[in-house]
Amino acid sequence: MIAVLEPGCSLKQKAAIVRSIEAEGFRVQVSEHGGRSLVGVVGSGAARMEIQLRAMPGVEEVQPVAPPYPLVSRAGHPQPTRIRIGDVVVGGKQIVVIGGPCSVESREQLLTAAGYVSASGASMLRGGAFKPRTSPYSFQGLGEEGLKLLAEAREKTGLPIVTEVVAPQDVALVARYADVLQIGARNMQNYRLLTEVGQQPKPVLLKRGLMATLQELLLAAEYVVSSGNPRVMLCERGIRTYEKATRNTLDIGAIPWLKERTHLPIVADPSHACGIRTLVTPLALASVAAGADAIIVETHPNPAEALSDKEQALLPEDFRAMMDALRRVAVAVGREVREPRQA
Amino acid sequence: MIAVLEPGCSLKQKAAIVRSIEAEGFRVQVSEHGGRSLVGVVGSGAARMEIQLRAMPGVEEVQPVAPPYPLVSRAGHPQPTRIRIGDVVVGGKQIVVIGGPCSVESREQLLTAAGYVSASGASMLRGGAFKPRTSPYSFQGLGEEGLKLLAEAREKTGLPIVTEVVAPQDVALVARYADVLQIGARNMQNYRLLTEVGQQPKPVLLKRGLMATLQELLLAAEYVVSSGNPRVMLCERGIRTYEKATRNTLDIGAIPWLKERTHLPIVADPSHACGIRTLVTPLALASVAAGADAIIVETHPNPAEALSDKEQALLPEDFRAMMDALRRVAVAVGREVREPRQA
Amino acid sequence: MIAVLEPGCSLKQKAAIVRSIEAEGFRVQVSEHGGRSLVGVVGSGAARMEIQLRAMPGVEEVQPVAPPYPLVSRAGHPQPTRIRIGDVVVGGKQIVVIGGPCSVESREQLLTAAGYVSASGASMLRGGAFKPRTSPYSFQGLGEEGLKLLAEAREKTGLPIVTEVVAPQDVALVARYADVLQIGARNMQNYRLLTEVGQQPKPVLLKRGLMATLQELLLAAEYVVSSGNPRVMLCERGIRTYEKATRNTLDIGAIPWLKERTHLPIVADPSHACGIRTLVTPLALASVAAGADAIIVETHPNPAEALSDKEQALLPEDFRAMMDALRRVAVAVGREVREPRQA
Amino acid sequence: MIAVLEPGCSLKQKAAIVRSIEAEGFRVQVSEHGGRSLVGVVGSGAARMEIQLRAMPGVEEVQPVAPPYPLVSRAGHPQPTRIRIGDVVVGGKQIVVIGGPCSVESREQLLTAAGYVSASGASMLRGGAFKPRTSPYSFQGLGEEGLKLLAEAREKTGLPIVTEVVAPQDVALVARYADVLQIGARNMQNYRLLTEVGQQPKPVLLKRGLMATLQELLLAAEYVVSSGNPRVMLCERGIRTYEKATRNTLDIGAIPWLKERTHLPIVADPSHACGIRTLVTPLALASVAAGADAIIVETHPNPAEALSDKEQALLPEDFRAMMDALRRVAVAVGREVREPRQA
Repeated sequence: MIAVLEPGCSLKQKAAIVRSIEAEGFRVQVSEHGGRSLVGVVGSGAARMEIQLRAMPGVEEVQPVAPPYPLVSRAGHPQPTRIRIGDVVVGGKQIVVIGGPCSVESREQLLTAAGYVSASGASMLRGGAFKPRTSPYSFQGLGEEGLKLLAEAREKTGLPIVTEVVAPQDVALVARYADVLQIGARNMQNYRLLTEVGQQPKPVLLKRGLMATLQELLLAAEYVVSSGNPRVMLCERGIRTYEKATRNTLDIGAIPWLKERTHLPIVADPSHACGIRTLVTPLALASVAAGADAIIVETHPNPAEALSDKEQALLPEDFRAMMDALRRVAVAVGREVREPRQA
Repeated sequence: MIAVLEPGCSLKQKAAIVRSIEAEGFRVQVSEHGGRSLVGVVGSGAARMEIQLRAMPGVEEVQPVAPPYPLVSRAGHPQPTRIRIGDVVVGGKQIVVIGGPCSVESREQLLTAAGYVSASGASMLRGGAFKPRTSPYSFQGLGEEGLKLLAEAREKTGLPIVTEVVAPQDVALVARYADVLQIGARNMQNYRLLTEVGQQPKPVLLKRGLMATLQELLLAAEYVVSSGNPRVMLCERGIRTYEKATRNTLDIGAIPWLKERTHLPIVADPSHACGIRTLVTPLALASVAAGADAIIVETHPNPAEALSDKEQALLPEDFRAMMDALRRVAVAVGREVREPRQA
Repeated sequence: MIAVLEPGCSLKQKAAIVRSIEAEGFRVQVSEHGGRSLVGVVGSGAARMEIQLRAMPGVEEVQPVAPPYPLVSRAGHPQPTRIRIGDVVVGGKQIVVIGGPCSVESREQLLTAAGYVSASGASMLRGGAFKPRTSPYSFQGLGEEGLKLLAEAREKTGLPIVTEVVAPQDVALVARYADVLQIGARNMQNYRLLTEVGQQPKPVLLKRGLMATLQELLLAAEYVVSSGNPRVMLCERGIRTYEKATRNTLDIGAIPWLKERTHLPIVADPSHACGIRTLVTPLALASVAAGADAIIVETHPNPAEALSDKEQALLPEDFRAMMDALRRVAVAVGREVREPRQA
Repeated sequence: MIAVLEPGCSLKQKAAIVRSIEAEGFRVQVSEHGGRSLVGVVGSGAARMEIQLRAMPGVEEVQPVAPPYPLVSRAGHPQPTRIRIGDVVVGGKQIVVIGGPCSVESREQLLTAAGYVSASGASMLRGGAFKPRTSPYSFQGLGEEGLKLLAEAREKTGLPIVTEVVAPQDVALVARYADVLQIGARNMQNYRLLTEVGQQPKPVLLKRGLMATLQELLLAAEYVVSSGNPRVMLCERGIRTYEKATRNTLDIGAIPWLKERTHLPIVADPSHACGIRTLVTPLALASVAAGADAIIVETHPNPAEALSDKEQALLPEDFRAMMDALRRVAVAVGREVREPRQA
C-alpha cells in the first residue's frame, strides 16, 4: 500500500505518518516523485492500515497497490532507476556491455580477456569465482583466489567487476572485491541469499531463474529492495522450454514487458540464453533492439580450453565484431553504446 | 542422399542417373549450384543407392545427407532462396513487411487497413478469410467472400496478399485469389494439407506450430518441397511455454538457428508471439536485428472492434511508427526495408 | 446457454422454444436428464437470447453456461456418458483395454497381435493404417489395405477396431471399416477434420494435442459434438514439456480434472506418454488408479522389427502381465477390467 | 569410476587401494554388495586412475561409470536403499504415508492435525517452520518456535517429523529437532545447502525443482551423498509446464524412471503437484500404482483458515478416506501401507 502525501505536507506530519506505520509493525519505504512523497507500507497485511492513513493530516490519497511488488513497480516510481557503478551508469541512455569469461581460470586467462574486453569498448568485466555447478564433480571455481584476480584485472583495466555469490555466508567476502554482486539463475529464489545481498550496499545483478515467471522475478527483486538495497538490475538469460535446439529460449518479450512494469534496469544475457557461439551476437543485437539497458556476454581468449561453457564463449574477434554491430543498432533505437573514458 | 555431379557431366549422363534413381522407386530433385548439378534422391531408404550412384559416369561424389530434411537444408543448397511474389522478393537484402488485420471482417475494414498499410510502406497485405478458431462458437471467417475482398484490396493498392488455408479441399479455391498461401500454426503438422499446397505453384508461408521443435518445422517444410513446391517461407510466431505474461514466447534464437540450417527465407510474427500491442514493435525490431527476412504484423483500423486478436493489433499510427523504426534497424544490420515502387 | 425445461413442458411448448432459437440463427441441442429436457443454444452470441427464453412457457430456468464447451460439460449433463461399441461399453464401471500395434504392417503381424491381445483379455484392437509422420520419408501406413486387414482381424477375434483418420476426405473410407475413429494428437486442432467426424455416426477417440491445454481439448471435443456426434472419448497421451527423459510427460492429473468437468469417457495412452517399454505398465496402472475409463496400449509381436514406435511397444508377455496387474488395480479402485464374453 | 574388488580381497589390499586413490586427491566411497566390495572413486578426473587401479592386487574390474551420478546410481548399487527413521523404513515393501499441514501455524492447529494424521494410520508428520515464499510479504513460518511445536507433536503421537530447511546456516538448528530434513523444490540446486545437509547424519527428503530434469535431481542427490550422507529420499512433486489447469504437472513417469536408475527411495507429493484438493487422492493412488515408496500429503484441520496452500490441503475426513484407498491400491501392486505399531 502506498500513501501519496500532499505537496505541502510538513516534516512533522510526515514523521507522524511514518511512526504510525512502524507502530503497527510495518516497514516504511519513502521515495520522492514529481515534488511529492510516496510512503510505502511494507509487510504482510499492510492493507489494514488504509483507513487510519487516509485520516492523517498530510495524506492526499492511499493507493491499494495492485502489483504485489510495490517497491520495484513503476506504479509508485515512474522514473527509471539509474545505477551508478564507478563512472558507469546502467539504466540511462547508454547501453552498457559487460564481457568476460564464464569462470576465472587463471591469471593469464583473466588478464588477457580483460585486456581485449576493455580494448573492444566494453564497460564492465564479468567472471565467476564461485560457480554453482550441476554436478558435484565439475570445476567449482577458484573462490577467493578468483576474486583477487578479478580485483587485479580491475586495477589494470579500470573496468568494474561483476561476479556471482552463491551462499549467504559468502556475501561479505564477495562484496569486498566485487563492484556488482550477481545472483545466478539457480539462486533466484534462494530467499536467504536475496535478503543478505539486500543488506549490503553493492548493486545486485539478479538473473531470472530458468523456470521463473516474470512475476516471480519481480518478487525476487522485491526481496532485495525491501531488505534495504534499491540498486538491483534484472537479467533475462533464457528460460527452459521444450525446445532443445538451443540451450535455453531467450524470452525476448520479457525485456519490453519488464520495462513497462518496473523502474529497474534490464540486462540481457544472450550467451546463456542460447549456448551456441554463432547465435550470441544476433541475440545481443535483438536484445538491444527490444530495449535492454545492458548486455552481459561470455568471451574467452581460447574457448576450446575453457573449463565451463566453452560452446558459447565468443572469441576475441567475435567480441569486437559484436561491439561494432551493437553500436549501430543502439543508435538505430535512439541510444548509444557506452564507451570507456579516454585516458 | 545427394549426388554431386561433375562440372562436365553430359545431359545424357544426367538423364541416365535420374532414370536409375526413379527405377528404384525414389523421387529426384535436381538443383544447380555454382556451376554444378546436385541430384537429390528422395524417399525412405534412399541410402541404399549410394554405391550404385558412385559408380555411374558423371557422378563426382555422393553425400549421405546428415539432416533428415535434405531439400530444405543448406547442406546441399548453400545459397539462400529468394522468393519472388510480383515485384516483391523475400529472402534477399531487403526486409519485407506484411501488414493487415487478423481477420477480414468487412469491405470497409479491409480497404481502410490496406490503405494505411500501403501508405506506411509495407509490401504485402495479410488478412484471414478462413480462420481456425479454438472454439466452434467463435467467428470462423468470411470464407470466399473474404477472399474476394482481399483481391479487391490488392487491386486497389497493388499489394500482394497473404491468406490462410485450413483444409486440403480449400487449397484450389484459396490459391485462385491469394499470392501467398499461409499454413497456420495449428496445421503445421497437417500433412495432407502440406502435401496439397506442395502440389500447386503459389508460395507458402509456413508457420511454426506452437508446440513444434525447429526440426519438426524443417520437416514440415520438407513435406511441401518434396511434394513439388520449393517456394516456402518459414515463420517463427512464438512458442508455448510455462510463461503466461505474454501469449506465447517469441523464440528469437530460432531465427539465426534456422538461417544456419536452411536456405529458405525466415519470417517473424511478433503479433502472435506476444499478444500485447505495446510489445509488438520492440519484438519486430528484435526480429530484424536477429536476422529475419520479413515481418508479418497485425494491424486494425479500430482494434477495439476487431472480431479476433484485438489486444495485439497495432493502431494505424503504431504501424507507421513501427515502419520508421524498422527502417533504422534494418540499415543498422546492413539491410534495408523494401519500399513500394513509386507510381 | 442452456434452457432447463419444466418437467411438465408440453411437446408444443418445446417446439416453440426450439423454433424461437433457430429463428435467431442459433443451433439447438436437446438432451434429456433425470426426467427433464435441457435445450442448448449453440452459436456465438447465444447469451443475448436469455431474456426471451426465460419468458417462454415451459422454461424453468436459463443457465448462462460458464464453460465455453456447453455440450461436453458436466454442468448441463451430470451423468457420465457411456459409449457402446458392439458389446463393449466405455465410460461405465468396467475398464476397457485397447491393445495392438502402432502401425498395421502386414497380415501376419496384425493377426498375431490381435490373437494375443484378445487372448489376454483386452476388449478392442488398435492399429494405424494412415500414419501422420513427422518426416515425409517415413513409413506412412498401408492405407486402405491396412483397413482391410483390421477388418479381417475383427472378423477373427470379435474385437472392435480403433484406427486413425488423418484427413477430412478419408473419413468416409475409414468409417466404412473402423468401429472407432481416432483423431491423433497432431490433428486435435484440425477443425475441418473434427467437423467431418462429427457428421458421421461412429464413435471418436480424440487424442489431446501434445501441447494442448485441457480447455482446448474440451473445445476440440465440442467441435465434434456440436457437429452432431455425441460419442466422443477423450484421450490423455502425454504432453510436451522440458523433460526429455521420457518421450512426453503423462499428465496424470488431467484424468481426474477432466472427469470433474466433462461427462465424456477418459482414455489414457501410457505408450505414447513415455515412449519407453518398461514404463508403460506402471503408467497404465497409475492411469486406472487416477480414474481412467479405458487404456490404449501399443504391443507388437516383435517390437525390434516394428516400423514405428518400436521402443515403446509391449512384448506379448508384457501385455499379458499388464492385464493381470490392471485387473488387481481396477478392483482396488472399485471397478473391474472388462473381460471378453465367453464363447 | 568404480573398482569392483575380488571376493577374496584382503583387508591389506583394500587399504592399499584406498590409499592410492586418496593419494591422487580423490575421495573414496566403499560399499558392500553381494559379498564383494565396490570402491567408488569420487572427484573430477577420476577416470585417469583406471589403469593404475586395474593393476592393483585385489581389483577384479574397473567400471567407467557411465552415469555422472555414481553414488546414487543403481549401476554400482543394485539393491534399493532402505532408510530407517525410528521404526519407520522408507524404501522397503511398505508404503509410508507422511501427512500434515503445509505450515506450522499454532500449537492447536499442529496438535489437532498430528492427532488425526496419526489416528488415520500415517507414519510420519510433516509441517513447515521455515517457509520459502515467493513474496517477501507472505507468512515466512514460525521458525524455531515451529520446530518446538513439531517436537511436541512427535512427543504426543510418536510420529517422526519431516520439516524443511532453507539455508545452510540453519541446518544445525533444524537437525536438532527434525527426524528428516526436507530440501524444497526452490532449493534443489542450492548447492551449499545440499553440501551442508550432506555433512550431518539426519535423512534428507530432496524435492525435485519445479523445472529440474531428472538427471539434475539425481546430480543434486549426488551432492548430498558425496558430502557424506547416503540417506536421501527423492521426491517428485510436479513440474512446471505450459498447462495451468493444475498448479503443476505431476510427472508420474518420473517414478518408475527413477526406480530403474537409482537405489534411493522415491516419494511422491500429490498436493503440490496439482494444488487442487479433489485431485490429491487420485494422484496419491496413481503414485503408489506407479511404484512410489512413500507419499507426502498436506492436510489441515481447517483448510479455509490455512496461512498457505489452503486450496490443496485435505480435510481430516479426506485424509482418512485417502488412507483407506491407498491401502487397497498398495495391496494390488504387491505392497502394503505401513501401519503404526499398536500401543
